[in-house]
Amino acid sequence: MILLLGATGYIGSAFAAELASRGVAHRPVSRAEVDYTRFDALLGLLREARPSFLINAAGYTGKPNVDACETHRAETLAGNTLLPQTIAHACAAVGLPWGHVSSGCIYNGAKLRSGTGVVAIPDLTAAAVRPLVETRSPDLLGFTEEDSPNFSFRSPPCSFYSGSKALGEEGVAATGAAYVWRLRIPFDEVDGPRNYLSKIQRYPRVYDNANSISHRRDFVRACLDLWERRAPFAIYNVTNPGYVTTRQVVQAIERVLRPGRRFEFWENDAEFYRLAARTPRSNCLMDVSRLLSTGVRIRPVEEALEESLRTWRPEPPATPSAG
Amino acid sequence: MILLLGATGYIGSAFAAELASRGVAHRPVSRAEVDYTRFDALLGLLREARPSFLINAAGYTGKPNVDACETHRAETLAGNTLLPQTIAHACAAVGLPWGHVSSGCIYNGAKLRSGTGVVAIPDLTAAAVRPLVETRSPDLLGFTEEDSPNFSFRSPPCSFYSGSKALGEEGVAATGAAYVWRLRIPFDEVDGPRNYLSKIQRYPRVYDNANSISHRRDFVRACLDLWERRAPFAIYNVTNPGYVTTRQVVQAIERVLRPGRRFEFWENDAEFYRLAARTPRSNCLMDVSRLLSTGVRIRPVEEALEESLRTWRPEPPATPSAG
Repeated sequence: MILLLGATGYIGSAFAAELASRGVAHRPVSRAEVDYTRFDALLGLLREARPSFLINAAGYTGKPNVDACETHRAETLAGNTLLPQTIAHACAAVGLPWGHVSSGCIYNGAKLRSGTGVVAIPDLTAAAVRPLVETRSPDLLGFTEEDSPNFSFRSPPCSFYSGSKALGEEGVAATGAAYVWRLRIPFDEVDGPRNYLSKIQRYPRVYDNANSISHRRDFVRACLDLWERRAPFAIYNVTNPGYVTTRQVVQAIERVLRPGRRFEFWENDAEFYRLAARTPRSNCLMDVSRLLSTGVRIRPVEEALEESLRTWRPEPPATPSAG
Repeated sequence: MILLLGATGYIGSAFAAELASRGVAHRPVSRAEVDYTRFDALLGLLREARPSFLINAAGYTGKPNVDACETHRAETLAGNTLLPQTIAHACAAVGLPWGHVSSGCIYNGAKLRSGTGVVAIPDLTAAAVRPLVETRSPDLLGFTEEDSPNFSFRSPPCSFYSGSKALGEEGVAATGAAYVWRLRIPFDEVDGPRNYLSKIQRYPRVYDNANSISHRRDFVRACLDLWERRAPFAIYNVTNPGYVTTRQVVQAIERVLRPGRRFEFWENDAEFYRLAARTPRSNCLMDVSRLLSTGVRIRPVEEALEESLRTWRPEPPATPSAG
């Protein structure tokens, strides 16, 4: 039986649905039932429930966006740094393997292979980068799990959210048998406030940049596949292979959904930060070689994007919470 | 046997000296010997060493001052928030009681009893406050352990240091049998970079305000007395009873040490923050009723201050590290 923390959240609910469709016994745990942020309560739960695996999909992302993490520092650290460490300690105390949903937003930029070596590309909004992404240049490289986070408290500047997530990974990595699954910018075919494709359609103006992104169901499938295959415990970047620019996504939306409006872009980074954002945003490309090397399969980003738009549907009405 | 973490630090070394003088068996543990920031390493140590008590005097205070915590966020959180939580979890896993050196710097200001109730005094630099402190007005009240921190991530603004310490207390309080000992502005008779009386003499200008302060040896004695008396596990403010203004301290230095210079004060708060400090400083008065109610005795601040200055001596040459 698999214990699932954060089962009612955007990613947690996808884990619950995928586990159900696989016929895997699982138990969602809500904080109202067991306050798993407390070590002794969590340890008691693990000893009583005797799960074979635990998934932590709980965390604090900020509402309506990561700017809220700048002003809700205690909640951000409690959810993204202290909670994973508490889970790591409790799992280590009983020898339970587990998986933690982390974030690729602890990186910014990408890398470029040149004649003289690999150079950092700190700014993915630059016009010069777009053709490299859109032509799938093999010289454009994403960050691997061996690269240290470069958008974190140890490598400022960063957002408070990113800093808390990077520090959370450290706590997990330092203790026991755990997967760290790095999600980035989730999307799928269900319209909703956390869906990247919905966000783009709702922004008054769009921020142009390049990114690796994660189809929500593809993400949870890949995470569960890693555990089912007993892949080595490690950090894994779990994004759909390939990269997209916001312009590519906008063009796909216009082509498939025909929204009957034109999308406007911020003139440049300076305008975006002056008018629309408070804390720096992560834009980055991720390398998924490690994930693919385990034999886990995940669709290219173009395919996941196209299918999401072709099967686009409104958010279903809220159902009673599972946990 | 008592395990002592952070034994070579300013407060840890005082614990080591006091334990030695009491003839209490203790073992200083350095991170080079056992990386106690890692849960599994610490748990292994506790199971092997089987101590009767543990003292955590390790933490990150920033060098040369707390401004460094603003730019060393990962180190600050790792030392002041994650480490106490890790210790709390490991001690809970083996049922070991322990004590954590926290800080009173998670408060700012004081309280004043008036005809209509108790009002907050947010600014202890105000000239109107000084006479209340210097005449020991019974209407001037310090914060008790029941008061929530008001200089923390949950109650901004605060310094990053204060935020990390307040969040660290939460992790300890949520788990098992532990003392939280709140130190404030340590001083004693040994000249040195962490000694408040040395700092005042070295500042080009002095920042005038009112504070509760802790004589270093009095502090560790009171902490150990709490454990020896088996006082209830709780948070304790551990400062010398009473309050001082910086002007009172300066006058005592001039009177006893006769330094042959005149001390200058910053004109006001705005000038201090513009020219000398980056992050907001905590100035606060602490109530020590809970400590005294246990029967533990600690000298009034005036007495500790006077004795420190009358026995003032240079820092002894460095000795090889104990841990």
